[in-house]
Amino acid sequence: MADTISFARGAPSLDIVDVEGLSAAAQRAFANDPGGLTAYGTAIGYVPLRKWIAEKHGVDESRVLVTNGSMQADAFLFQTLVQSGSDVVVEKPTYDRTLLNLKSLGAQIHMVSLERDGISTDELAGLLRGGVKPSLAHVIPNFQNPAGYTLSLEKRRALLDLAGEFGFPIFEDDPYIDIRFAGESLPTMLSLDESDDKVVYASSFSKTVAPGVRVGYLVGPAGLIDDIRKLATNTYIAPNMVAQGIVYEFCASGAIDRSIATVKAALAERVDILCDALAEHLPEATFQKPEGGYFMWVSLPEGSDIDAIFAAASERGVAIVKGTDFLLEGGENTLRLAYSGVTADQIEEGVKRLAEAVHAVPVAG
Amino acid sequence: MADTISFARGAPSLDIVDVEGLSAAAQRAFANDPGGLTAYGTAIGYVPLRKWIAEKHGVDESRVLVTNGSMQADAFLFQTLVQSGSDVVVEKPTYDRTLLNLKSLGAQIHMVSLERDGISTDELAGLLRGGVKPSLAHVIPNFQNPAGYTLSLEKRRALLDLAGEFGFPIFEDDPYIDIRFAGESLPTMLSLDESDDKVVYASSFSKTVAPGVRVGYLVGPAGLIDDIRKLATNTYIAPNMVAQGIVYEFCASGAIDRSIATVKAALAERVDILCDALAEHLPEATFQKPEGGYFMWVSLPEGSDIDAIFAAASERGVAIVKGTDFLLEGGENTLRLAYSGVTADQIEEGVKRLAEAVHAVPVAG
Repeated sequence: MADTISFARGAPSLDIVDVEGLSAAAQRAFANDPGGLTAYGTAIGYVPLRKWIAEKHGVDESRVLVTNGSMQADAFLFQTLVQSGSDVVVEKPTYDRTLLNLKSLGAQIHMVSLERDGISTDELAGLLRGGVKPSLAHVIPNFQNPAGYTLSLEKRRALLDLAGEFGFPIFEDDPYIDIRFAGESLPTMLSLDESDDKVVYASSFSKTVAPGVRVGYLVGPAGLIDDIRKLATNTYIAPNMVAQGIVYEFCASGAIDRSIATVKAALAERVDILCDALAEHLPEATFQKPEGGYFMWVSLPEGSDIDAIFAAASERGVAIVKGTDFLLEGGENTLRLAYSGVTADQIEEGVKRLAEAVHAVPVAG
Repeated sequence: MADTISFARGAPSLDIVDVEGLSAAAQRAFANDPGGLTAYGTAIGYVPLRKWIAEKHGVDESRVLVTNGSMQADAFLFQTLVQSGSDVVVEKPTYDRTLLNLKSLGAQIHMVSLERDGISTDELAGLLRGGVKPSLAHVIPNFQNPAGYTLSLEKRRALLDLAGEFGFPIFEDDPYIDIRFAGESLPTMLSLDESDDKVVYASSFSKTVAPGVRVGYLVGPAGLIDDIRKLATNTYIAPNMVAQGIVYEFCASGAIDRSIATVKAALAERVDILCDALAEHLPEATFQKPEGGYFMWVSLPEGSDIDAIFAAASERGVAIVKGTDFLLEGGENTLRLAYSGVTADQIEEGVKRLAEAVHAVPVAG
């Protein structure tokens, strides 16, 4: 069998990572701030990077905490706000690790339908009026994982209104925002929230620099950020100063802008090829072409058996993620395709293999 | 007032960190393994570094997990083994952050007296015979924080015997082992444990490379390490690949041996100056001269008031840590001096200021 072509992992292929730029940033970082990189530092993160992030988002530095990747930021936030039995709202479908971590905390998870313009605010309003009191509502607003959909401006405003009316924090989980390769950018809920107390925002440098640097961050109300700072101090004293120092140099020098341009151009090309190949080889698949990010959600005809398709695909050397992994129930006719880790020349062959796998499995009913 | 001289923080002064060596290691790491450094990696850590550590300790790789600093390793271990109400044994005195984290988990903490040759195994045996069933016994065997004492070979064997007889794991917390500048090295309990199931060992590169790299590790029974790997995956996907890749190159090239030699020579000189200065300016202080590590425990006459001395020292521009911070009760006549962060030329002046502070505060009784 040929080497496996993976549409499974949400990670960039090495050809779109600026390794030379990172190596050069490392040299500058050690030369410019040897004390800052090698000393313990503090739990708020590497100070110049924290300042750069605060300026990017137009907020006071006291509202920013830089962590070892944004998953660690999520973990701290959940540890602070979510107890066993807490009501938590997530999108349906949503990121499988988020779902797993909320489950393991014993949260009462309420999945709210994700539409092509984002979470159903009507369905959420119904839940809230019915008495659900969320500890947080987790929303991935841009190029959602796994669906690739983006939350409309109207719904961003509606969510903020609901958060104000019913008194819950929105967890705006936004790692893909800078990887928009089509359409118009929308303002973050963080920036739309004039009260500065309704949104906790998370993002990451995994998609704009590289995942291996493991640098993410939270922006939130200063009091909450200070609580999380204490938790972070007791957990690890400080996050990685060497990696954060390198990322700071990469950002401050403008290398990050060139890196983002490279990533966007590559992903735009891949999405075009992916959608064309699906139309040709798997015409029964339905999907919405993403305007950014790493992922596309694909629906097959009702009655499809994703477990069998997954196995058949695996046998044919193509990896996907089953839609059921992103849901508490249902989704047996859905899958997620990541186009971040495949190079353009692998995509058509991968889709051909996937189509063969789909066509090898009978549809029920 | 002159700049504060700090005997407070257990961190190296910048002059004993090999910044150029780290920068060179970073360049080699990005050149030799661009994919390994920039991709997500997995929760067990950067694979070549894990292998290097396994070889250093003569264990199978499956028993090693590399983390973002050893505090994070401790946190994972405690999260796995300690519940609210769990009996836990620690040394008296012990590292203040360990004490704080065990308290916040709601552990039932049993402090066992630390003697100049390590934890009192007789006192521990009495506790165990009295029915205490520890989830773990935390021991810092070499150059203990805060006391600077080292566990004798006889007591290492006695601890392993007790662990076998009463069925509890020893948490051998050993970040200072490679910083021995006098006397003879002793084998780790990890290496003495022929059953391979009585010891979970933690160490770190903070003292041999630099704290800002935030690289620590656990070595333990393969099953426990695999449980912690799952917890680590859910917490942060993977630790810092960039920093671990740099540390690996620093180790593999032999730069770490030169770095350790530099650190040991500097600390040996500082300890000599510190002990001489105390003998001259504060002759009523008693202490045991450390053979390695960062810290020395100092006892003042009974009736001394460490809170008042701390404040008086602070006014005179010298920082110390109160002995009471390392205990659940008592220790009002004790303090910890760290000689890692002060350069040789600051020490005598710092001790003079400390002596003035001690002499400015009346002794009770």
